[in-house]
Amino acid sequence: MILGIDIGGTKCAAVLGTSEGEVLERRAMPTEADAGWRDIVDRLLQMARDVGGGRELTGVGISCGGPLDTTRGVVMSPPNLPGWDAVPIRSEFERAFPGVRVELENDANATALAEWRWGAGRGTRHMAFLTMGTGIGGGLILDGRLYRGANDLAGEVGHQTILPEGPLCGCGKRGCLEALASGPSIGRLARDSVMYGRGRRVLELAGGKVADITARQVIEAAREGDAFGLGILEEAGTYMGIGLANLIQIINPERIVLGTIAVHAGDLILEPIRRTVAERAWARAVERCTIVPAELGDRAQDLAALALMA
Amino acid sequence: MILGIDIGGTKCAAVLGTSEGEVLERRAMPTEADAGWRDIVDRLLQMARDVGGGRELTGVGISCGGPLDTTRGVVMSPPNLPGWDAVPIRSEFERAFPGVRVELENDANATALAEWRWGAGRGTRHMAFLTMGTGIGGGLILDGRLYRGANDLAGEVGHQTILPEGPLCGCGKRGCLEALASGPSIGRLARDSVMYGRGRRVLELAGGKVADITARQVIEAAREGDAFGLGILEEAGTYMGIGLANLIQIINPERIVLGTIAVHAGDLILEPIRRTVAERAWARAVERCTIVPAELGDRAQDLAALALMA
Repeated sequence: MILGIDIGGTKCAAVLGTSEGEVLERRAMPTEADAGWRDIVDRLLQMARDVGGGRELTGVGISCGGPLDTTRGVVMSPPNLPGWDAVPIRSEFERAFPGVRVELENDANATALAEWRWGAGRGTRHMAFLTMGTGIGGGLILDGRLYRGANDLAGEVGHQTILPEGPLCGCGKRGCLEALASGPSIGRLARDSVMYGRGRRVLELAGGKVADITARQVIEAAREGDAFGLGILEEAGTYMGIGLANLIQIINPERIVLGTIAVHAGDLILEPIRRTVAERAWARAVERCTIVPAELGDRAQDLAALALMA
Repeated sequence: MILGIDIGGTKCAAVLGTSEGEVLERRAMPTEADAGWRDIVDRLLQMARDVGGGRELTGVGISCGGPLDTTRGVVMSPPNLPGWDAVPIRSEFERAFPGVRVELENDANATALAEWRWGAGRGTRHMAFLTMGTGIGGGLILDGRLYRGANDLAGEVGHQTILPEGPLCGCGKRGCLEALASGPSIGRLARDSVMYGRGRRVLELAGGKVADITARQVIEAAREGDAFGLGILEEAGTYMGIGLANLIQIINPERIVLGTIAVHAGDLILEPIRRTVAERAWARAVERCTIVPAELGDRAQDLAALALMA
């Protein structure tokens, strides 16, 4: 029996589950991030005790946005949790669950583990998982285990440079993959192009307001066969394809699992991604690697926390 | 006692050494690549028996240019060994040295192991080695062991895309790091620029012939303080820096060890590399990673073969 704790900027959850990824019980709460870390952690511990108290636990897995220091089990100022400066979350849970092993891991790595154990990465030895939502984070499973790197920063595939003079990324660098192919970047690509009189259907779906165009309307229009929407996904998919080709040249994985946007847009974005990968990476490595959408969907967050101890 | 076999396009060597990287005996021969694989392998086996026969061997390590199939111990048509199509080199040596373990590995991976055990990568757990000579090959040591990927193609850092519309690479793709920062690419950058009337000193060092300019004259001029030579190394170093920043974002290594050009040009190219890395990769990952020239020099090839069994 494993206790999984998922800490997010808007909601937190505690799940009780098995090492086969079966969820037996689940509670959630709004984070209320402004309340400060002490208050949030106290409510989290209470919820954890409600779910896991009195059970024979083999471990507690905590999944949280980075940056983290996983060796010390400390949360280091993630952007979505203001005021969490060096919060010793692991020792808080160790005190609440004496004698139970507690692991802290960043959410992208934890989701990579979950997709590898129970989702689209099952049965592989070398796999990369990339979120493709608000940002492009990632986790690497190499030689059959999570690879963290020298200080927990491995797998940040979204912050490789694709266009040296490209748009500014949220991370402060220029031309990152995330600045070209994440959800918000797809929205921006569309907003920048719609202004030249193109993209009427996308604009219509956004209620006629350019500022309200997001990846959602782009994907919806593309699904209807709209050329503008398809073109935007083609452009973002091409950038993503270059990034994945580089990843393939460097780690030669068997499988790349892509989150949110790839799940929603499916082949509309996977097709340009795969085509670009075939152009940009070596054939022998490309033939060995399948690029697929994630499988766990809404269950990913809960399973991510469980996967840490499974 | 280890027998190390280095197979190259122009020369081959057999060395007897220890697991501490001490070379006790060494023989070499010209490859005469046109002679065909059967003839070359026969001469190689004879040389190996001369050096290692009658010794108590713990293993035979064979280092050879890729592509290889290391699982089956087979050489698959390397460009520098014409006619070597699926040569079962491991079983040839297993027959010659019954009961002794034989390992085949590509030369970049083998050199990475040697630099990690006995050179500039000593004491690290996560290290990348990149040749920076005729090509930009590479080898990765992750979590304290050689990482090969799904089919022996991991570490091909030189064939990530740096400029999507950049120059054609020898591998057939466009804008690869190797097409922008290898030895021949540095020569080409200089030849392309010297034609506009700049770079007199470099041209002079090449005997006045544009076609004879190579990385050697560029480095020599830069050493004298020549602005043109320095500018070319700055340009190549910037491209290399982007490639290493991407590598750092993906594998978060503790150390990156750079071969040939970095050894010869030293800070003249390492300085722009390090500056670009600091601009293009995340500060927390950059602070954790040192970028240094290789240390093994002329001994690298011999030690690479030994490192496979050390």
